[in-house]
Amino acid sequence: MPPPLPIAFVAGRSGIWRIDRVCPVSGEGLPVADRLAVLEGSEALGPTEGSWILRGVTSNTRYANRLEVDALVASQEALLRPQATRAALIPIRKTETWWDLAQDERRAIFEEQSRHISIGLNYLPAIARRLHHSHELGEPFDFITWFEYAPEHAESFEEMVQQLRSTPEWRYIEREVDIRLSRDEPPG
Amino acid sequence: MPPPLPIAFVAGRSGIWRIDRVCPVSGEGLPVADRLAVLEGSEALGPTEGSWILRGVTSNTRYANRLEVDALVASQEALLRPQATRAALIPIRKTETWWDLAQDERRAIFEEQSRHISIGLNYLPAIARRLHHSHELGEPFDFITWFEYAPEHAESFEEMVQQLRSTPEWRYIEREVDIRLSRDEPPG
Repeated sequence: MPPPLPIAFVAGRSGIWRIDRVCPVSGEGLPVADRLAVLEGSEALGPTEGSWILRGVTSNTRYANRLEVDALVASQEALLRPQATRAALIPIRKTETWWDLAQDERRAIFEEQSRHISIGLNYLPAIARRLHHSHELGEPFDFITWFEYAPEHAESFEEMVQQLRSTPEWRYIEREVDIRLSRDEPPG
Repeated sequence: MPPPLPIAFVAGRSGIWRIDRVCPVSGEGLPVADRLAVLEGSEALGPTEGSWILRGVTSNTRYANRLEVDALVASQEALLRPQATRAALIPIRKTETWWDLAQDERRAIFEEQSRHISIGLNYLPAIARRLHHSHELGEPFDFITWFEYAPEHAESFEEMVQQLRSTPEWRYIEREVDIRLSRDEPPG
């Protein structure tokens, strides 16, 4: 399905994902909960009960140029691979200063200074990723990124997250929560 | 108020704007109605009755670089100037091909090939403008632009609209409706 695809991340008592930890990185955190369900499309739009619900939509790329898009498409993997039993849900909100920057200024910080796309490319295809936009939805966060990976890539994932958090781009992040999840290995 | 500010354009029997015409430019049109109300912020979010309602949010610039943003900010005027008794509401939807382009490809079509920002700058400050994003909201249009101008600038406005519609960017527009409106001159 082409974007925009509405997605709801519903924390509560149901869902295939077990919530292992909910850690505030910047600003206010989120309450802990047992499970997380990821609802897509029309399922994501209805009223839903949960300890908390984060909503976003998939959308077009905002900074990647053609070469970068082609490189990403060539090596990125789909979600829900059987071996990818670990996940991370990382909602962030950027500062008003960030949003007031012009497009060329945001691109320069994002890629030329911070290598956001290049860093992510280094961890493909092991780490699958989907970005959700929330800035236009009146949500408490601007972006929600969802990652999936196999347990043997857990260290690589930590390395990638640490690299991104040390970039100039992260100075424009005023709220970030790091939620880690896991699910059972598929049988067999 | 900083963006995103939710806006609802409600066509029906009330509102300060008289709807003078509703013309389909590409694809399906919209029903005619008598009046249009422009609701902002929390007023725009509630359930509202109308012949039709278009929703969008103000947001950050997507293509303008720093020089262009500064030029726009230096000469653009606010909405609801007393003499600006004419308005145009132009919702558009772009093709899937457009949204699949990378950021550099969209920027090149938008400005280097089509001079979208430059054309708009030529008509400042006479024509005031506010852009609303709808692509992420699950709305039938991707963008809604609202323009206001004095009757003596009506010809300039037509000229600007014709120039934009003849650009390469407009090949990526699959639905466009052109709604023209007016309101009474302020007393005195």
